[in-house]
Amino acid sequence: MAAQGIRGTFVDFVDDPWRHVGDEQAATRFFRDGLLVVEDGIVVDHGPAEEVAPRHPGLPITEIRDRLILPGFIDGHIHVPQTRVLGAYGEQLLPWLEKWVFPEERRYSDPGYALEGTRRFFDTLLASGTTTCQAFTTADPAFTRVVFEEATRRNMRIITGVTAIDQNAPEWFTRSPEAFYDAATELIAEFHGVGRNLYAITPRFAYGASPALLETCRRLRDEHPGVWVHTHISENPSEIAGVLALHGGSADYLGVYEKYGLVGERFTGGHGVWLSDDELRRMSEAGAAVTFCPCSNLYLGSGLFRLGKVTDPERRVLTSFGTDMGGGNRFSMLNVLEDAYKVGMLNNTLLDGSVDPSRQNLAEAERNKLSPYRAFYAITRGSAEALYIDDRVGSFDIGREADFVVLDWTGGPPAAAWHASLYTDGRGPETLDEAAELLFAIMMVGDDRAVAETWVAGQRTYARDGA
Amino acid sequence: MAAQGIRGTFVDFVDDPWRHVGDEQAATRFFRDGLLVVEDGIVVDHGPAEEVAPRHPGLPITEIRDRLILPGFIDGHIHVPQTRVLGAYGEQLLPWLEKWVFPEERRYSDPGYALEGTRRFFDTLLASGTTTCQAFTTADPAFTRVVFEEATRRNMRIITGVTAIDQNAPEWFTRSPEAFYDAATELIAEFHGVGRNLYAITPRFAYGASPALLETCRRLRDEHPGVWVHTHISENPSEIAGVLALHGGSADYLGVYEKYGLVGERFTGGHGVWLSDDELRRMSEAGAAVTFCPCSNLYLGSGLFRLGKVTDPERRVLTSFGTDMGGGNRFSMLNVLEDAYKVGMLNNTLLDGSVDPSRQNLAEAERNKLSPYRAFYAITRGSAEALYIDDRVGSFDIGREADFVVLDWTGGPPAAAWHASLYTDGRGPETLDEAAELLFAIMMVGDDRAVAETWVAGQRTYARDGA
Repeated sequence: MAAQGIRGTFVDFVDDPWRHVGDEQAATRFFRDGLLVVEDGIVVDHGPAEEVAPRHPGLPITEIRDRLILPGFIDGHIHVPQTRVLGAYGEQLLPWLEKWVFPEERRYSDPGYALEGTRRFFDTLLASGTTTCQAFTTADPAFTRVVFEEATRRNMRIITGVTAIDQNAPEWFTRSPEAFYDAATELIAEFHGVGRNLYAITPRFAYGASPALLETCRRLRDEHPGVWVHTHISENPSEIAGVLALHGGSADYLGVYEKYGLVGERFTGGHGVWLSDDELRRMSEAGAAVTFCPCSNLYLGSGLFRLGKVTDPERRVLTSFGTDMGGGNRFSMLNVLEDAYKVGMLNNTLLDGSVDPSRQNLAEAERNKLSPYRAFYAITRGSAEALYIDDRVGSFDIGREADFVVLDWTGGPPAAAWHASLYTDGRGPETLDEAAELLFAIMMVGDDRAVAETWVAGQRTYARDGA
Repeated sequence: MAAQGIRGTFVDFVDDPWRHVGDEQAATRFFRDGLLVVEDGIVVDHGPAEEVAPRHPGLPITEIRDRLILPGFIDGHIHVPQTRVLGAYGEQLLPWLEKWVFPEERRYSDPGYALEGTRRFFDTLLASGTTTCQAFTTADPAFTRVVFEEATRRNMRIITGVTAIDQNAPEWFTRSPEAFYDAATELIAEFHGVGRNLYAITPRFAYGASPALLETCRRLRDEHPGVWVHTHISENPSEIAGVLALHGGSADYLGVYEKYGLVGERFTGGHGVWLSDDELRRMSEAGAAVTFCPCSNLYLGSGLFRLGKVTDPERRVLTSFGTDMGGGNRFSMLNVLEDAYKVGMLNNTLLDGSVDPSRQNLAEAERNKLSPYRAFYAITRGSAEALYIDDRVGSFDIGREADFVVLDWTGGPPAAAWHASLYTDGRGPETLDEAAELLFAIMMVGDDRAVAETWVAGQRTYARDGA
């Protein structure tokens, strides 16, 4: 495919802003009049238009005005078959699963429903600016195949795999370790590393896994050392109690996964709200990742993720951000940033010493404040790093896949446009400072309506205002 | 004006659902095919169409299909001159006021800006389905007059008044007790009880008021016993420390307002996140109200409002819900319900004993769950009761002012329509149960896009899809 250029205002990240407290701009790249050159879906050049354009004479260029262009958003933890039940009135985690989630997920064993739900899932992701996700399916290999095939058809990078669950769920929902092993082996051979697909060994959670099932996960990982591992961890206090009762001999939740050799690079545990300092230290040392899912943590009342703890540069825990749709009630990573900011501010107040002086930790309090630099890093390069796909997506570095989102700072509720005009008086941003103000406006006052276009591998796949 | 009928599906409330735990439907009224008869802006008849219609032969009828019609939403606590700065990146309460709020509010001393901002304020309220608010202006009587005049022009019921502040703010922002007294006296005479306007004596907060200023508030209340009192209370731990330092001799924040005789019926303290059990008991006994502003409490990190505590029927504290826009980052009361649900669920987990058995209180935990019955009661009749205007608005009782909102359960992000179809398969609700499921979908998956129309005193003043 011939090269093409996209000209507009670009923001992406070159480093973790939490490593640059007080100077987060140093982690950021901003081209007010930038040019992105894409060939065969890959970024081949990027920089100020006046520098880049002369290197590509005759390049066909798409001009995008009055917008901010960022790498496509990455959702580190989401459930495909919950597309319809997101936000269902419920309870805390365990009864909510029983009442709403398991019955709905069962419907995906019907091929027609599976295809309809999967298409709606990807359509909604793209309308939300999300171009990559790490997703749960169900224990059904046929449905998991539908998800891989639909992602392939759309040329979207995805990490997913058939779910392992053989405990604490309705009988029709579970599969034996042997059936899981066979399904996973077949799907890995068929999809892992094919096109943009990546495979994850996916035990639903330790609460739903017998020792034999986790042993099977270990075996799969030994046999396929290049694949990913995706699960849940320490979401809810009652869940943790259940896990420790089920898996005697482990001192904590992480210890269960460690026992079966699953914790290391390319391991993600969703949530981690209640991880202890020691569990976080072990995850940091192992290069394992957690996903912060604030919409879900608030919706299910799970608790306040310790954002300022995991982002300590001295003991950084790789952290992607995720919707956890449908435990989270929104598809948009902009809503995730809104709720992440709110969680961080609650933590900030708890850590500033004004409530309980003995808990004062001003450095951690500061790291809980989700500035726009931290926020948009977290859902682009930061999530890519946590998922070990930053060599593929998450930035405009040369060689990355050209997934990006085009943001309109006037999009959102009726209040959004006048609010955004506070910062630049309606014109586009001339400095990174101004761009950051607009990005913060998009995440706190705007919503999915700010997503004007979404591009996947150099192709425009969503346009808010029609083609 | 001749009578008119509105025919459609109606939901409103006849009692507090928190008094009907386990049978909240008993607090609710539902007419699948209902008729509302309005004359001169007042509800003169309401009930099933087949019963009501024969009583009004020849009545011109507007049919509203595939929608839910509820009383207009009531915002118990909002700041007109923060319309543009809502959601500005900031800090906790006090530094956020200094950086963003005071400078923006100052601009409203310019008459042109005041009028523009006020018009945008009311336009955005109506687009959000909010027909009544209790609002802050500034210490500027001219701007306060603009707000009353604009509300009058739109025939909207409002409670507001000029702000009293003489401490802890920039010098240009404050007014002397004498200047405040003169301005308030003049505005009460001009606006209180005129049309749909109601006047509130409005000390910004005890942190911004000298003893002399609070003494002036007491004097105004003595001279005008029919007016309202609106202020802030116990929003943030540092603010509380500041108040107690400023007003020596009071054991707690409420005690400061009590000392000046302000706490009683028609008193509202915004926030009350950190009110003690004893303060809540005294408010309950006095008939005073608090406003729960979850978007703001999360956005500024203020803390988790004790929803299950104030709703204890044995010691009920009157509670309106509010945006606190711009401390809250959203104008829509639907977003308020979303965040209120999340606060309630966090409290639920803290009170179920799974984190700390010594805090277990299962009855209070249960009351923290914001069912759709509780939620929509809270922003209609419940807020009207807390503001002592339930004889005027908040329900479809005969004699109430005909303010209502027309909700479309498919409105919201791309995920909303398929989600809502889970409950009624696309058709309208046939039972109250189904209507409640759709209302919950609107508050957790939908947003302001669910507001199809807003009517004020029998006149349609907003239509999402154009006239």
